[in-house]
Formats: sequence, structure tokens, C-alpha cells
Amino acid sequence: MVLGIDRLKLAIRDRMSNRQLVSLAERRAGVDNIAAFGSGGSLKPLNWQTLGGVRAAKFQPRQASGTGMVIYAHGGAFVAGSPHSHQALCENIAQYAGVPVLSIAYRLAPEHPHPAAVDDLIAVYQALLDQGSDPSRLVLAGDSAGATIVLLALCRLRDDGQVMPKAAVMISPLYDFTCSSSTYEDKAAADPFISRHGLLEDINQYLCDGAACVGDLQKILGNLTGLPPLLIQVGSDEVLLGDAGMLAQNAGRAGVPVVLEVWPHMSHVWHLFPAYVDEALEASRTIGRFIEQALAK
Amino acid sequence: MVLGIDRLKLAIRDRMSNRQLVSLAERRAGVDNIAAFGSGGSLKPLNWQTLGGVRAAKFQPRQASGTGMVIYAHGGAFVAGSPHSHQALCENIAQYAGVPVLSIAYRLAPEHPHPAAVDDLIAVYQALLDQGSDPSRLVLAGDSAGATIVLLALCRLRDDGQVMPKAAVMISPLYDFTCSSSTYEDKAAADPFISRHGLLEDINQYLCDGAACVGDLQKILGNLTGLPPLLIQVGSDEVLLGDAGMLAQNAGRAGVPVVLEVWPHMSHVWHLFPAYVDEALEASRTIGRFIEQALAK
Repeated sequence: MVLGIDRLKLAIRDRMSNRQLVSLAERRAGVDNIAAFGSGGSLKPLNWQTLGGVRAAKFQPRQASGTGMVIYAHGGAFVAGSPHSHQALCENIAQYAGVPVLSIAYRLAPEHPHPAAVDDLIAVYQALLDQGSDPSRLVLAGDSAGATIVLLALCRLRDDGQVMPKAAVMISPLYDFTCSSSTYEDKAAADPFISRHGLLEDINQYLCDGAACVGDLQKILGNLTGLPPLLIQVGSDEVLLGDAGMLAQNAGRAGVPVVLEVWPHMSHVWHLFPAYVDEALEASRTIGRFIEQALAK
Repeated sequence: MVLGIDRLKLAIRDRMSNRQLVSLAERRAGVDNIAAFGSGGSLKPLNWQTLGGVRAAKFQPRQASGTGMVIYAHGGAFVAGSPHSHQALCENIAQYAGVPVLSIAYRLAPEHPHPAAVDDLIAVYQALLDQGSDPSRLVLAGDSAGATIVLLALCRLRDDGQVMPKAAVMISPLYDFTCSSSTYEDKAAADPFISRHGLLEDINQYLCDGAACVGDLQKILGNLTGLPPLLIQVGSDEVLLGDAGMLAQNAGRAGVPVVLEVWPHMSHVWHLFPAYVDEALEASRTIGRFIEQALAK
């Protein structure tokens, strides 16, 4: 039984309403609870392992369609989220892609500001290569701030002359640290998840030294030359719609193969909520197909 | 044997170099010649019919995957192009989509300014409905200025309260009649096909009364609410890259399901040149799959 997007938006608005009042620990617990709330299903214990010193939960497909692996960076505005919160999402992508998904427990801000999260993602990628993984069998994926971490990691791999993964997937990505897109205003009423004000606060937690750091990171993210093929998915009812468009345009101009999908009426990372919207599984299936096709090339 | 994108760009640059010197009749003959030049194959006689008073060439799939039809509006900057120039492209889309493609010989400017071309597309659509076609089995498609004509037709159908086709496909669309995108400059050196100056001249031929008309049409195209799902394909090496991004963003904001694909290194409507680039057939196959899936829903 699917409850619908309006019910989902109401439920999220309700959960977000006391965001300013709760402690960081409570906020993190609330985000972790998304897995049960969004999937409506019972959750299995996670299958933990450590790679490159980073803990990660591995999700195995019931039927593997070949060798390969997805490294997943969850969202949560740099300060929350975990392999728990994104358990159902990663499970679904593993099934649809036919390869395991490794969901990494990267270090969170404010305890661990930038570049800790990016370091952790790179460490996992490097550990897989050290174990003999073929980079052309690896895909990076992430949502929201997790997509930002993937982008920053890809730019660093490129700048360090490292070999790239085969492709990358970005769900509802945060691309612009200054939150300048007009959709922050146009879609504010439609988006129960993110306010520009709150997101800027979280970004500030993540960033080492404020304004100067923003400028550096914007410059890094402004040059997307050499990145692998990108699939970007975004909902039409989210304030990050403009960021997704900006990312697609900048990557496209840099000669990166880009597919941008705008899903009408969907809210931020709707893939987390299969109990509410059919589009959660539909979009995850599209991601799985993209990964399968990328790895088949 | 595939000659490659660099050879294609050189060949097009060579063909476009004397554009200012030739007569309109010679220019039209040159554009029609794209079919042979681009496909490298022998061309079959066209299968003409008349619908709603408009001549159209019908391309039948060897294997039909179900009922349905694509109505195709060729490009050519409103002043050139025909079902001859786009013969190979339409043939390929018919094969990949598994439904017939009806490539319409809409009236060209300057002899027939706006809204003649849009009237012709609507007349064909209406004639198919009058013959009993189910609009949910119809897809509109077009490239370059043909995509503009499709967009204007969709907006008019919406404003007139008519039933929409199931989906629409836009290859390298012209969306902004003022040609304001920064990619007109950024991609000028990479794009052998289109110059901003030349395109503005052609747009002026198409438009009834210059500036006032541009404003009206920009206003119409600014509201994409209610349009059916769109697939937009564009090359990273064309001045219209910015238009494709703008169209995707505006349609997405209006709640239209959008897929935008940016194909690296490709030039304007590369689908016309399977003799030069493998991506011509790959992109046409993607279009066929999109149409097949849209009609299956």
C-alpha cells in the first residue's frame, strides 16, 4: 500500500518542525529512523566491514549480474545520516544494479569537518583498488550532501592523477555551497525537507574555516572536466532542483556524459520512501539499470 | 567504417563556409543532401502521404512493437530541411522505436512565417486524432528548430485544452529566440554548424513582426506546465547546449518529467551522421527506447 507524496510531505514536515529544538544526537537518531519510516518494512542487521580504516555496510544483490561494486555516500547535510538511515535505499540499488553496494560510515561534521568525509571515501576507493578491484568495475553514488562528497572525491582523484571509477550517480545533489539557486525560493513551499537557512548552517558546520573555504571548494567543483559519466536524479518539488540543473550544465559543458532526470512532484531523495511513493523503487530501478549498463561497457 | 567526430566537424565547417554566398534554394539543396552525406548509404524513395493537408513521409519499422506513431518535425533553422534531409534519422528512429515515424513537410520561412509550421504540425496531429488515433499512442519529436515547433505546438494544444500526446523528444533544441545562452560564445569554436549571428537572421525570417513577436513567443515558451514527458538530447560541443539545459530546467520546474542527456564531443544533431560517429545510432537507439517505454505505460 502506497500512501502518496502528499502524505510523505506532511510526515516530513512534521518530523522537521522541531529540528531547531533537538540536540544533534536526537537529530541523528531521527535521520537514522528514516529507514524504518520510509520503507515501512522490517530491517535486517547490517553486514559491517572495515576498508581503508572506514566502516561500511555491504548490501549484496540476491542475483549478481557480474563483478563490480557501488561505493555509496549517504546524505544528511554532512552532520547526520549513516548506513542505517539509507539501508533500504542501498539494499534496493544493490538488487536493481546486480552488484554489491558498500555504504560507508564516513566521519560527520561538526566533530570532523571537511575534508574528513572526502578522505574517508577516497580511503575506501583506494583500499578496493589495493585489494585488486578494477576501477572500471567501480561506481560512486551518493545523495544530497553525499553527492557533494562524491563530487569532491572525483575532483580530487582527477587532480591527483588517479584512475577514475566507471560512473557516478547523484540523487538530489547539493552542488553549490552558497545555495544561490532561485529554486531555494521558488520551491520553498513545496519542499518540507530543506530550508536554505538550515542548509547554510549545516554547510558551515562542515567547512573548516568558513568563507575562504567555500571559495576554494566552489572553484574545485566549478571544473568538472575529466569526470566519469553521471546520472543525476532530482525531484521537481525540492529546493535543490536548481543545483541539479547547474551540475548537469557544468558537467555537460566540460564534456562529461550526463543524464539528468527530473521526477515530477517528488521531494528530496524520495528513494528513501518506498512506503509512500511508487517512484522510490522506479527511480532506484533506473539507477540500477544505469549502473548495470555503465559496468557492461 | 566510422570517420569520427573531428572529420565530421571539418566536413560541416567546409559545407557551411559559403553559407552567406549561396541562394536559399542552394542552401536548401545542401541541407537535403545531408541524408546521403551523413548516412553514407543509398537512400530509398520516400513513402509520401497527405494528412490534414500536409505532406509527410512515413517510415515503417521492420518489426512493429505495438500500435503508435511518432510525428517528426525536422530541423533546418525554420528556412530549410525536409523529410529528405532527415530521411536516415527518421528511418532509424522508426526501427528503434518499433512504431512508424511520420516526418512532416511543414511550410518553411521566409515564404511561410510563424505560425505556419506550428499550424501544419497541429493539423497532422488533429488529422490522426480524427482518423481515430489514440493520443496516448502518439509521440511528437523534432530537432533544432523542429523541436521549437514541437514545443510551440504542445503549448498551443495545452492552451486550447486539447489532449496531449504521450511524450515528446527534442534533439539539440532551440528554446530561446533571443539566443542569450553563454554557450553561444563558449562553444562557438567547437560548433561548426551554428553561429549566433546566422541563427538570429534565420529566426528573424521565421518571425512575423520581429521583436514584438519574439516577446510573445518567449512568454509562451516560458510556461511549460502541462507538457508531456520530455527526452532532450544535446551534444557538449554545440552552441545550443545552454538552450537544452534551460529547457530541461524550465520544464522540470513546471513539473514536467524530464530526461536531459548531454553527449560529449557531439555536434548539432549528430544523429544525422551515422557514417561519421557511432553515437548517431546509439543516441537514436536511446530515443527509440524512450518512445517504446513511454508508449508501454
